[in-house]
Amino acid sequence: MCLSAIGALAQTPSQYNLDGKTFPQINPDNSVTFQFSAPSAQSVTLQLGRDYPMTKGERGLWTVTTDPLAVGFHYYSINIGGIAATDPTTHTFYGTSKFSSAVEVPESEADAAFYTPRKDVPQGAVRSVRFYSDACKEWRRMYVYTPAGYEQEPETRYPVLYLQHGGGEDETGWIFQGRADVILDNLIASGKAKPMIVVMNSGYASKPDSQDSFDAFEQMMTEDVIPFVDSRYRTIADRSSRAVAGLSWGAKQAYDLALGYPEMFSAVGGFSGIIVVGEFNVGNPGIMDKSQRKTAYDGIFKDSRKFNRDFSVLFISSGQAEGQLLKNMSKTLRKDGIRNTYYESQDTAHEWLTWRRSLYNFAQLLFK
Amino acid sequence: MCLSAIGALAQTPSQYNLDGKTFPQINPDNSVTFQFSAPSAQSVTLQLGRDYPMTKGERGLWTVTTDPLAVGFHYYSINIGGIAATDPTTHTFYGTSKFSSAVEVPESEADAAFYTPRKDVPQGAVRSVRFYSDACKEWRRMYVYTPAGYEQEPETRYPVLYLQHGGGEDETGWIFQGRADVILDNLIASGKAKPMIVVMNSGYASKPDSQDSFDAFEQMMTEDVIPFVDSRYRTIADRSSRAVAGLSWGAKQAYDLALGYPEMFSAVGGFSGIIVVGEFNVGNPGIMDKSQRKTAYDGIFKDSRKFNRDFSVLFISSGQAEGQLLKNMSKTLRKDGIRNTYYESQDTAHEWLTWRRSLYNFAQLLFK
Repeated sequence: MCLSAIGALAQTPSQYNLDGKTFPQINPDNSVTFQFSAPSAQSVTLQLGRDYPMTKGERGLWTVTTDPLAVGFHYYSINIGGIAATDPTTHTFYGTSKFSSAVEVPESEADAAFYTPRKDVPQGAVRSVRFYSDACKEWRRMYVYTPAGYEQEPETRYPVLYLQHGGGEDETGWIFQGRADVILDNLIASGKAKPMIVVMNSGYASKPDSQDSFDAFEQMMTEDVIPFVDSRYRTIADRSSRAVAGLSWGAKQAYDLALGYPEMFSAVGGFSGIIVVGEFNVGNPGIMDKSQRKTAYDGIFKDSRKFNRDFSVLFISSGQAEGQLLKNMSKTLRKDGIRNTYYESQDTAHEWLTWRRSLYNFAQLLFK
Repeated sequence: MCLSAIGALAQTPSQYNLDGKTFPQINPDNSVTFQFSAPSAQSVTLQLGRDYPMTKGERGLWTVTTDPLAVGFHYYSINIGGIAATDPTTHTFYGTSKFSSAVEVPESEADAAFYTPRKDVPQGAVRSVRFYSDACKEWRRMYVYTPAGYEQEPETRYPVLYLQHGGGEDETGWIFQGRADVILDNLIASGKAKPMIVVMNSGYASKPDSQDSFDAFEQMMTEDVIPFVDSRYRTIADRSSRAVAGLSWGAKQAYDLALGYPEMFSAVGGFSGIIVVGEFNVGNPGIMDKSQRKTAYDGIFKDSRKFNRDFSVLFISSGQAEGQLLKNMSKTLRKDGIRNTYYESQDTAHEWLTWRRSLYNFAQLLFK
């Protein structure tokens, strides 16, 4: 009892807890303590990276403390009787193909500064915009970030970054998990990035007449989304002011758009994802071999001088814990003369801290 | 087996299901069938208005069909072992002070038309805007609806409606549960309502030096939110172009703002909520007695001719199933000479269908 009272001084409620909720709590060693009430449950398991069986205490309160966790964003579920439930004390995020609970183990204030709101930095806004996709024959929603000043300066036009989430996520991911709006606010205020519009769409698309979701996504983006954005917002509507990036599964979509439609894009970023040639194969991803590099995307890599002239940015990033695959892809392309920037996020894995840092670095290269 | 195959033709997946999920399903008699997998659970209960014990079938699938439900929006939980979990197959909504699953039993297409998006209607946008509240000493988020045309006509200025949610909800409620953006899009396109900006804030506020959350909310709205909105957006920044409305618990906040700050507002709507004088008492709400009507809000009701001159709209609404309390409040005020509009939503209770219809009727009266 005494221990817990002393310990409490150094424990902080997770930033995603609902108002007034004290659990989950982040401990000084980056372990996280979970507690909640399930008086009549037989067994309860916390699922966070691995399974942690929880212990039942007084008044039906189940508790567990995890191992020390990596800094950054972690989805979790509470498994009761075989169902992976959300924790009723926290915000939910669309990820792992459902609404999930999450905790974030904070970095140092200095490291987190680039995605933390500041009172002396003007704030942009994120619009939720409903639109009808003719390609998909359905109402959809996109998120549109406009930088501070967009409202006040009605003559200014802006370049546009199209930004895609990863598998099992949607158009909300880059704002709620990724904090893209705060990252851009801070970058723009400090002069490190050009003011830009950022457009986020769900990468899940389907056409009534096709089973190919990547094909549906491309048609939706090129025929519905981009013309809509250019007509609705004060964009600079040409390829030199249009970029696309995505993470993981969304990196393939970003590469497909930029390399498949070079008349529309001049810059591309792939965060934690490879350039996929042919069939998408999650289980066995490989770097393009030499002959593929000659033929992929209508031979876009064949003439490196033309490629380097046409694409101002080819940005490849990876979390350090993700291994060497993407570093090797970057090197291989360089050997072919294809200019690219490789960024590696120190001490992070296939998760949102890697991608926040990737966006921070990528955005600084754009539209110069 | 045969029965279920035949029945399936007339069953529709709930509109809030995640992509590709078939349950919950709305049946032709407005009952709803739930199904999900919890192989090792001992007992599972659906909580939707009342408790429905679920039945375990093959492969750990639990199912239940509810009684026929009223049309409109219903929050629900899955109770497993004493924890009220969300259903992993559905979107979640912030309501009942947590993220909750929900189903909507649809009205007829004709009745639902006013909150259904249409391809021939231009769409506005909803901005999520981060701002720092000096009153509350914290970063907060507001939602700002701007009508179609706001982006394209940089000279036009607009009146503003401040719109508040109910107890246990937040600034997202009017968009996700209430569809305020679609309602306004449709009203404005048909010429039934003036183009307006709608600003939605969480009604939950606290000041470091005070326990009075209503007081904190008022200070935040009048000192932080309204000046911020007037500086950031192309508003008409005077009382004749500023209205406030709220539902249930938020109706009190709307009345407190309009009647407490008549120099700022000229129109007010209270949906399913009374004008509360003195201490807020949910358990025993009563209409103001005669002496209270003379003294409430610095005697604003004392001089009915002045009140009627100063307030262009006092709108009071109620669901038919909510009883006579608000109809009586409207009548009592009329007897005192206080002009007001009373609207009753047929066949609905204290829920979002009442409030969508209330907004639809209220918005048509504003800024004429």
